[in-house]
Order: sequence, then C-alpha cells, then structure tokens
Amino acid sequence: MSRRLEGRRVLITDIDRYMGRPIAELFSAEGAVVIENGDDLRQPGAAERVVAEAGPLDVLVANLAEADEKMELLENIRDEDWHGFFDRLVHPLMRLVRAAVPPMCAQGHGKVVAITSAAPLRGVPKASAYCAARGAQNAFIRAVGLEVARHNVQVNAIAQNYVENVTYYPPEMIADAAMMERILKVVPAKRLGKGRETAELALFLASENSDFIVGQVIPFSGGWATTTG
Amino acid sequence: MSRRLEGRRVLITDIDRYMGRPIAELFSAEGAVVIENGDDLRQPGAAERVVAEAGPLDVLVANLAEADEKMELLENIRDEDWHGFFDRLVHPLMRLVRAAVPPMCAQGHGKVVAITSAAPLRGVPKASAYCAARGAQNAFIRAVGLEVARHNVQVNAIAQNYVENVTYYPPEMIADAAMMERILKVVPAKRLGKGRETAELALFLASENSDFIVGQVIPFSGGWATTTG
Amino acid sequence: MSRRLEGRRVLITDIDRYMGRPIAELFSAEGAVVIENGDDLRQPGAAERVVAEAGPLDVLVANLAEADEKMELLENIRDEDWHGFFDRLVHPLMRLVRAAVPPMCAQGHGKVVAITSAAPLRGVPKASAYCAARGAQNAFIRAVGLEVARHNVQVNAIAQNYVENVTYYPPEMIADAAMMERILKVVPAKRLGKGRETAELALFLASENSDFIVGQVIPFSGGWATTTG
Amino acid sequence: MSRRLEGRRVLITDIDRYMGRPIAELFSAEGAVVIENGDDLRQPGAAERVVAEAGPLDVLVANLAEADEKMELLENIRDEDWHGFFDRLVHPLMRLVRAAVPPMCAQGHGKVVAITSAAPLRGVPKASAYCAARGAQNAFIRAVGLEVARHNVQVNAIAQNYVENVTYYPPEMIADAAMMERILKVVPAKRLGKGRETAELALFLASENSDFIVGQVIPFSGGWATTTG
Repeated sequence: MSRRLEGRRVLITDIDRYMGRPIAELFSAEGAVVIENGDDLRQPGAAERVVAEAGPLDVLVANLAEADEKMELLENIRDEDWHGFFDRLVHPLMRLVRAAVPPMCAQGHGKVVAITSAAPLRGVPKASAYCAARGAQNAFIRAVGLEVARHNVQVNAIAQNYVENVTYYPPEMIADAAMMERILKVVPAKRLGKGRETAELALFLASENSDFIVGQVIPFSGGWATTTG
Repeated sequence: MSRRLEGRRVLITDIDRYMGRPIAELFSAEGAVVIENGDDLRQPGAAERVVAEAGPLDVLVANLAEADEKMELLENIRDEDWHGFFDRLVHPLMRLVRAAVPPMCAQGHGKVVAITSAAPLRGVPKASAYCAARGAQNAFIRAVGLEVARHNVQVNAIAQNYVENVTYYPPEMIADAAMMERILKVVPAKRLGKGRETAELALFLASENSDFIVGQVIPFSGGWATTTG
Repeated sequence: MSRRLEGRRVLITDIDRYMGRPIAELFSAEGAVVIENGDDLRQPGAAERVVAEAGPLDVLVANLAEADEKMELLENIRDEDWHGFFDRLVHPLMRLVRAAVPPMCAQGHGKVVAITSAAPLRGVPKASAYCAARGAQNAFIRAVGLEVARHNVQVNAIAQNYVENVTYYPPEMIADAAMMERILKVVPAKRLGKGRETAELALFLASENSDFIVGQVIPFSGGWATTTG
Repeated sequence: MSRRLEGRRVLITDIDRYMGRPIAELFSAEGAVVIENGDDLRQPGAAERVVAEAGPLDVLVANLAEADEKMELLENIRDEDWHGFFDRLVHPLMRLVRAAVPPMCAQGHGKVVAITSAAPLRGVPKASAYCAARGAQNAFIRAVGLEVARHNVQVNAIAQNYVENVTYYPPEMIADAAMMERILKVVPAKRLGKGRETAELALFLASENSDFIVGQVIPFSGGWATTTG
C-alpha cells in the first residue's frame, strides 16, 4: 500500500464542512498526521490560535465554507449575508495563511491547498456575493503563491464546482433526479465529482511531486470551467 | 465637436482619488451631467444615500481607492490595512451597484463602469491584500454583469495598472526617473498610461456602442496584463 | 457629425465575409480611406501583395473567415477542412501582419485589429478544428502585440461570438426562431450582437484613444465568454 | 513500491525530444507498458499508423516538439519555420488525437496528456510563431476535452515553461550561469523545473485520480504563468 503522505503534519479547517472530511480521510489513509479543526474562524485571533495549537505544519488545507449565508439576486443581497461570506471565507483565509506560511518559509518547505470555488472563474448570476468572496480567495492565493515561491513553499487553490459535498450538495439535492439532470446539463463530464477526487487533487498539491506549481487556481469542475478567470 | 455623452447623468465616486478627476473631465466635456462625489463610503448607508441623492442615473462610474492602507509582505499584513482595503474597495462597490442597478434595470438601460485593477489578473507579490480586494471587485462585476445583462444594463470593469493617477503614482514617483525606468521594464508599451486614456475606455464602456460587452474585466495596462486572470 | 477616423488609411481583408462590410461601412462614414480587399489569401505572396498594393497604412483590419470548411466532431474532421481553417485563418494572418506591421513601426504608429473568435476562449465541442485555428490567431496576436508595443503600434483582436454576420449567421438561420431561441439560451445579453457593434469596437481599437491597449484578445459575445481563455 | 500505472498501455511520441524520456522513465517505473515512438509525424498517415501499430491504448502522451525551426522577431519569421511549427506541433496533434480517442470512447475510458507550452498563455515577444502553434494546440485540447468528456475520456494539456529538457534547455544553456540567472529572474520559483516533475503531473493526469479534470490547459512553469490565457 502506498503511503504518499507518511508522517506529514496537515491541518484541515472547517473539518465538517465542504471538503474537510473526504480530504481528512484520504490524507489519513496515506499516512498523514491530520489535525482536524472545526472552530469558528470568524473572530480575530481564532485562526492564529488554531495554527499555533496545531504545531509545526507541512501542509495547511484551508477549507472554508459559509454556514447559512444565502446566495441571492443583486437587489436581494442582505448585508449580513454579504459580510458573512467575507467573514467566513476570506478573512480567515488570510489569517490562516499569514500564521502558517512564515514558519513554512523558515523551515524551507510547506504547502497550502485552499479549497475555493470555480464560481468566480466564469461568474454565476444570482451568486455575485459568493463569487466576490471566492474571487478574493483566489486572488489572494495567487499573489501569496508568487510571493513565497522562492522559499520552496507552494500555495495553490482548488477552484471546484459540481463536486459532491455536504455543504453545497446535501443528500436531498442529490436524490432529486430532475434537479440533478438540470444541473448536469452544463457539466461536460455529465456527473458530479466525488469528494475523493478533490482529495486526490489536494494530495497531489500537498506532495513534493507538485513543487513546481505555485500561485495557481486550478479549475476542478468536470469541464464546467476550464480557464482561470 | 463631438458630444458623446450628451445629457447622460453620470455618478462618479471617490472623485478626488484614482481615476475620478480625469473621467469627470472627459465626461463633462462630452456633454454628460456629472455628479461628483467624494464621500467616505465605508459606512453602511453611505453608498445608498449617495446613489439616492444623485437621482436617476444613466451611468455609474464606481471609482474606489484606498486611502492610507499599506501593501505589505504576507507576514506584515496588518488587520487594519486588510480590512481597510475591503472596507474602501469591496463593500462600497456592492452597495453602490445594489443601489444603482435595479433602477437601471427598471428603466431598461444603464451602465456601470468599475475602475478596479489588473493586479489580481497576474498576482503581485507584496500586494496580496490589495490583490484580494481588487479580485473580489472583479469577480463581483463579472457575476453581476452576467446577471443583469438581459435587462440591457451593462456592468464591466477596467482592470488597470501602470496608469498615471494621484493615488498610486504621485508626482514625486513620476519625477523619479530611475524608479520609473525600473517600473516600466515590465510594461511592454514602455510608458505609463494617461488618465485621459482610462477615461476614453470608460467613455466607450459608458456609451451604447459597447452594449454587447457585459460582465467583463478588461485589462488596461500597456500589455503588462493581457489576460483576465 | 463626428469624423473619428478622418483620413486614416485602413485595409480590410475578406471584405465580403464575416465582419468586412459592417466595418468598412462605419469606418468610411467616419472619414477613413478604406481599402477593401476580397482576394483569396491562401497562396504565399498574396497577403504580401495586398499589403503592398494598399500603400501606407494606419490600420489593418485582419478580417479572415473560412469559406466552406466544415466544423465536425473529432472523429469526422477531414484533413481538407482542418487545413482549410489554417490556410484561410491562420497563415494569412501571419503574412498580413508580417507585411503591414514593420512599416507601421518605422512610421511610429499603427493599429492592427484582428477579427478572430471567442470560441477558443471557452472551447466549443464539435468545433475543435475551428477552435484550434482561431486559438492560433489569438495567441499570435497576443505575442506580436507585446513584441511591437514599444514602437507605438497596437495589435489586438476582437474575439467575437454570437454577432450577426453573413458567414456564420446567414439570414435563414436568423429567421429560424426556434433555432435562435436555442442559441440565445447561452448568451446572457439574450440577443445577437450587431455588425455595427463589432465595428464600433474595431473603431475604438483603431483610434488613438486605445493606445494603451496592446496584445489583447477582447471577448465580444454578449457575456457568453467574459474571460480570455 | 507503488505501481501507479500498472499494466496501462501508454503511447509516447517524439520520444527523444522535449519531455519524452522523463515521462517514459517514470511511467515505466510505475508499471506502464510504454510504447515509445520517435517517428517523424509530419506526413499525413504517419500519426494514424503509429497509433494503429501501438494497439489498444489507455493513455496517449502527445509530446511534440519542433526540430530546427527558429523563433524570430515578426519581420524575420521565415515561411519554412512558420509552417514547420504547425507541421510538427499542430497537425500531428490533431491526427494523433483523432486516431487514438475514438477507440478510447468506445472502450469507455482513456486519457490524453498533451505536452504543450505556457508561452501562449502570456505571450512571448520574438516567439510569435511558436506561440501561435502552441496556442493552436492548447485551444484544440480544450475543445476536444469538452467534446469527449461524457465518454469518460479525459483530454488535457500540460502547458509548461522553464522546465529542463533536451529540446529547449540543452546542457550548454544550463551550464551558462549568467544566462540562467537572467532567465530565472522571471520565474517565481527561482529554479527550472525538472523533467521528473512534468512526468509526475503527466502521471496524475494519466491516472483515474484526475477523472474530473477535462479540457484543461494546466500552466506548469514555477509561477511564470499561473493563468490559462
């Protein structure tokens, strides 16, 4: 059996949302020491504390998802939802990265894999608040990735869409055949991705095999988005 | 003499920063009724009030720039600068657009020209906070632009870099020949753009000649960035 | 009346196909001296001859379209169609630009506006041969645009889709309401563009107002493609 | 020892150029049955014959490089170099894919990994002919990838730059420290990639772990290009 992450110390945030569980499962099976965290990271100081408590890290999986913030048409965007997206997705990403990456640079290696979204790569009507927040994430990852590349630290994002996950594709949606058929019309692969598939891409980006990939926002959506924006 | 914006009612924000003045000057010369605004738009309600006081609009020029927020290396990003970028660039953009666009949809025509930045299109080391905020703007404009296109309202962004302006290229920087030479090394056009040139692109995007362009983030940087990210 | 291209010498190729006529009409109305050309440019030497005979040029509108080459599924691509796309779209573009641009560099100003396609920006199934050829055009324009920018010559492309024209949207297609409804499903603007609108963008790119735009492939498709690939 | 491609039948073209050898080495070590081919694929029929002789394929690595074609400034592009790029890079790619992919669709699985270039993603002055040909490859891969995705066949490209290889980085160039320092100025990772690293990305794209990635052109350049064009 392969042990592709043997002994690597990996912090995964928002562990019970979005892609937290499938990544934790695969990484653990591959020998990683996974530090699972489910703390609410909206408060200043929370992200820094989580990173500090995790101890030395080889990999940060910055998995962040909103809770009950709603996607709405422009005129219906509520201030609390708008700020909710930024408070849950954007600001904690900066704090996690700002806390985790400098020690990686000091130790001469490290990886950040942010799980973001493909939505801003094409732009999704009725989801402009979400696109704005995910777009901020993608832009931040690109800039930081280029900044720290020279220290042998690789920072990248998986910009996914149409992948099964508890946050955006709850079981009742997946069970709705008519809805799924409609959704899959725009997905060239004609299926949803599996959590395991995101986890495999995350694993590739967390391994030294991808050391020459930095500052990239990789579309992962069965062909729905193939370009970076 | 041409009067390419005869009688159009145009709101321009942050009038004394970034591209406010050169756009106001050209638009006025072309016959537009320019409503100049310099209010601090950070407070909830401010953007909405400014739009309401402007009266019916044909065009919103969402020109937003930070004040004294600093661009720093990742480890030196200060929370107040990070939030300053979002408070000045991102949140007011949503509020301005949310207030101004629905009436445009109702009247059956309208234009939003956001003056954003090319920085997130390529990613700029030492400016990841700025890139994140400008990236949020670009992603928001794209999504809203697609959402409202069917109402004959066109929402686009000018993603500029290396254009003369009071905010990012103060006179003392432009007077520093050595610095300018170093800066222009990465600009294929081998010069800075002029404020008037941004204003001409804004005018094109504010006129009915560009009605088939929606949701686009147009690089404007003398060739530094030629792609959309 | 405005005369936005007064006295400019403009060569437009493939005059009776694609966007030739609407561009010629607008440019002429704006005072340009339009040299219309409809020669078959597939033979080596033809493009060079057409440029030489045109005399000094301010603007080259490199408008190129295939004739009866067919778009097919991968397994049905015929060699003659494949090479037809390259022989009509790609190789003449290089020859036209190679002939026209060096004199522009020597005289210190000039513009190339290539009318290409948005198809390769997103990728279109059943049109991979066409996408390949139009993708070659776009890549060539970008590289040349960056190369010659320092000589005050601006080379850009209009990457359009869903714009009325005699080559891709013949009258019988436009008259077919059911087909048009199906086509427009994927166009956020919910209409086809007009030839005049492409011509206005071409005019903007042909005027000195756009001198800071170089090497760009500008999507023009009512929101179908908003990114550069 | 992991055997990540155990028993997979893989055809690799232009075996002695560009990335042929390092990919063959890794894939063989991982258990693949590698069919190495070094035939000149410029003649019609050659690509088809090579695919036919290879027998059933799980993976096609479409590795194509020019021979002695020269990159030149626009005015110095020679017709034979221009056509050489297309004859060696573009037309054989179509023929290989057209021959290899339909049987993959019929058998219900398959992978194409094209080794192309990041050059057209940003545009490289003095290399417009090369950019045009590589751009055609990238656009073709994107369109075909979307077209065949529903058949569980994944077609993608590695758009690399600044990776060690015998074709573009001969030993004498790598031994020239001054030249290397100049080259690496624009590479955020501050080193060339290794052939092994391209091979690892190719392996990821050749494995079922990446089945949800289709029609993508993946930048691979140490951060020089992070976007898809």
